[in-house]
Amino acid sequence: MNDRNIPHIVVSRLPRYLQALEHMLHDGIHTTSSQELGDMIGISAAQIRKDLSQFGEFGKQGKGYGVSFLVEQLQQILNVNRHWEIALVGAGNLGHAIAHYQDFNKHGFNVTMIYDSDPALIGTQIGSYVVQNAANMVDEIRKAGIKVGMITVPANSAQAVADELVKAGVQAILNYAPINLNVPEGVRVQYIDPIIYLQRMTYYLG
Amino acid sequence: MNDRNIPHIVVSRLPRYLQALEHMLHDGIHTTSSQELGDMIGISAAQIRKDLSQFGEFGKQGKGYGVSFLVEQLQQILNVNRHWEIALVGAGNLGHAIAHYQDFNKHGFNVTMIYDSDPALIGTQIGSYVVQNAANMVDEIRKAGIKVGMITVPANSAQAVADELVKAGVQAILNYAPINLNVPEGVRVQYIDPIIYLQRMTYYLG
Repeated sequence: MNDRNIPHIVVSRLPRYLQALEHMLHDGIHTTSSQELGDMIGISAAQIRKDLSQFGEFGKQGKGYGVSFLVEQLQQILNVNRHWEIALVGAGNLGHAIAHYQDFNKHGFNVTMIYDSDPALIGTQIGSYVVQNAANMVDEIRKAGIKVGMITVPANSAQAVADELVKAGVQAILNYAPINLNVPEGVRVQYIDPIIYLQRMTYYLG
Repeated sequence: MNDRNIPHIVVSRLPRYLQALEHMLHDGIHTTSSQELGDMIGISAAQIRKDLSQFGEFGKQGKGYGVSFLVEQLQQILNVNRHWEIALVGAGNLGHAIAHYQDFNKHGFNVTMIYDSDPALIGTQIGSYVVQNAANMVDEIRKAGIKVGMITVPANSAQAVADELVKAGVQAILNYAPINLNVPEGVRVQYIDPIIYLQRMTYYLG
């Protein structure tokens, strides 16, 4: 279990470091510096050094960071050096796109259950999976021990789905529905709402 | 043009306030308080009051905020009291899902151009749009005066697409490709990468 005292803002930057380092690794770059990494992702070198120092000593003074070593360390810190099963609720257009998104598997996230409440969708095939009846999800997800859920249903049913996921023991929810979710303490929610991101930019286009 | 001196972190919270207030409006709630709004989205009442005070006086002491008035004000501040045309590049699964996502239109974001470089996709229909040849996008987007782009191509072609969009005069890019983009100053990029969001939660699932 990770130290809860590290501010979430620090934790939230680690996946971006990991992503950039994985690209370096893929490009055959073996060592890097906080400066180079920072230039790549638009974060200051000082910030990167400070963030990483909260978790240990990963670089050698004047020698920079070993890319593959730092990738491994970050994967371990973020608990992504393993596979996570995911239950996806909502088998519409977005659910389809997500089920087909190969980057999830590449990063150890495997959508293994897909649910919907629409009788027209239950039993249909998405990739190698069959859409299951949402009425059974609490029992099935609990039995499978799945801890990560994704919500791709319309906004007006998202809270009800979140409640079910929590009941099933899910502790992390990626919510694509454009609505804020209320969940008990200890359950994490991240939001992917393109409207919010667009509006954060139109502010500057006035 | 908006005051660039307001910290981006403040700007970035405004769309979440707007979203919650729009839900209230939809539910027939006419007045609210920073406390109620804060409880809804998990931000402190003091933070909300402080953020809003940067843009003016929107509430009356002890009387709270008029929901529809505050919605209008936030829409104006965020420049979303108008329509924005969007050029979408990448007509694969994700591009399809986005082109069908009705919430964009509801919020004034209209995907009016869809591009791809795959001859198998060029000329195919997505909803009411025909996929156009990406080779023509710089001229066409510039001519149409489109300022907002979305990238839904694979990571290895995302930077090249971003360069073209910038050449075409696009000033705001919503990037779904899992890679950091380098753009000139004055161009805004927001990232939607589900892997990053999942990894921000698995940290806590150790």
